[in-house]
Amino acid sequence: MKLATIRTADGTAAVRLDGDRAVETGASDVAALLRRPDWRTHATAAEGRTHDVAALDLAPAVTTPGKIFCVGHNYRAHIAEMGREMPSYPSLFAKFANCLLGARDDIVHPAETGQLDWEAELGFVVGAPLRRRAGKEEAAAAIAGYTVVNDISMRDWQWRTPQWLQGKAWQASTPTGPWLVTGDDIDDAADLEIRCEVDGQSMQRSRTSDLLFTPADIAAYLSTFTTLEPGDLILTGTPGGVGAARDPKVFLRPGQVVRTVVEGIGECVNTIVEDKP
Amino acid sequence: MKLATIRTADGTAAVRLDGDRAVETGASDVAALLRRPDWRTHATAAEGRTHDVAALDLAPAVTTPGKIFCVGHNYRAHIAEMGREMPSYPSLFAKFANCLLGARDDIVHPAETGQLDWEAELGFVVGAPLRRRAGKEEAAAAIAGYTVVNDISMRDWQWRTPQWLQGKAWQASTPTGPWLVTGDDIDDAADLEIRCEVDGQSMQRSRTSDLLFTPADIAAYLSTFTTLEPGDLILTGTPGGVGAARDPKVFLRPGQVVRTVVEGIGECVNTIVEDKP
Repeated sequence: MKLATIRTADGTAAVRLDGDRAVETGASDVAALLRRPDWRTHATAAEGRTHDVAALDLAPAVTTPGKIFCVGHNYRAHIAEMGREMPSYPSLFAKFANCLLGARDDIVHPAETGQLDWEAELGFVVGAPLRRRAGKEEAAAAIAGYTVVNDISMRDWQWRTPQWLQGKAWQASTPTGPWLVTGDDIDDAADLEIRCEVDGQSMQRSRTSDLLFTPADIAAYLSTFTTLEPGDLILTGTPGGVGAARDPKVFLRPGQVVRTVVEGIGECVNTIVEDKP
Repeated sequence: MKLATIRTADGTAAVRLDGDRAVETGASDVAALLRRPDWRTHATAAEGRTHDVAALDLAPAVTTPGKIFCVGHNYRAHIAEMGREMPSYPSLFAKFANCLLGARDDIVHPAETGQLDWEAELGFVVGAPLRRRAGKEEAAAAIAGYTVVNDISMRDWQWRTPQWLQGKAWQASTPTGPWLVTGDDIDDAADLEIRCEVDGQSMQRSRTSDLLFTPADIAAYLSTFTTLEPGDLILTGTPGGVGAARDPKVFLRPGQVVRTVVEGIGECVNTIVEDKP
């Protein structure tokens, strides 16, 4: 099942995608839908207002996640090419709900950065409360589904201090969508191609089978110290090929188009536009 | 004016403190109260159900902050004693709303850490939307008031990876309270004593005048990349004297009592209790 959050004249709405039709579920976004314990049967049965899929105004896949966790250094080949040892623990940082952008929205190139960079990522969204100290099996069962994210990063700000947050938490910077695909539809995203293209040129290309910490590993690890709640969004990290790791370095400029694709899920296509402070 | 969030039989409630009486304002927590543009006049005039202050069950000062930002390395004397240069930018990391604890709540010593440490901090809460790229004066005006926070840290987890988050984002770990004191009552917290005691022994003692980045500096800096919203909570960093920086290192154990005081605001008094996983 595919679930999206769309913008309508009456605010956002969570929809189920049925071929070329999008059917409203009554919830105001996919995170709110997932907070219903019966979300799966409710979404399957919903027969609300319908929309033409081709004309949808896509909001971020979830607009009201209570928590957003992100993982750094998680693709084995990328860790190896950087000459790093395989980490024993996932590196974790945060974002906030207002960081998220829709899958077709423009990405504003902030006037304050000279190093706007891409990071294609598999995202997943929690669909059931995951109690503290859950095992991996329980964690896997708590995942509602998967989405495509680009963890757009302001590298100069990311590296101003040892903590990355200020390069990662820019408002309206992180394309997330176009929708959530439930895990049963894609074999829990175990081996999907992930890639990022800039103006049609391939910049990142890997497979989720190369993830050192899988979505279930990450959810179980997080549950050591926090209860995950329905609607929480987790970004699983990016493969090699980011602009800052190239020689010479390459960064995004206004006018360029970033395409972020995860096989079997969908794609975000976002144009970089000039900032008008 | 002092505003607190209390636990009642009907859920949490934001109250105004009038001497030994606490008067309900109709909002479910202080963050919800602050989301009313007229919060100041509304809170001043509120005449809801009253409670005896001595019998209050204090929740965190805000229970529904949309964002929590924290600053590291911000007291000049502490930076100097660590042999570090004064940073040009604040180090920023995040917490989530479920990290917060009430001012009298027990702090559970998680079984997974051997390095539970204290960090007395001045916290402030946003009282008006602060637009992107606000100046320092505008930032100062957007601060509703101040509170006392202890950024309890699991050092072994904090230093597992280069990103501190996993040592900082434990559920129910961060005493925040006992209330919010509006800025006009304490000269915008410019020069207040801040201290932390463990079982009556002084561990940290400094003054907020030693802050390298003031609350208004921090709010203005954050506004470069995000809109601050009413209810957002910001932790301004801790002075010297944390357990991990002592020789030998000292960490918290079940049975100990941590007292965190900011002059003119109030104190959090929290007992460390054993984990029962």
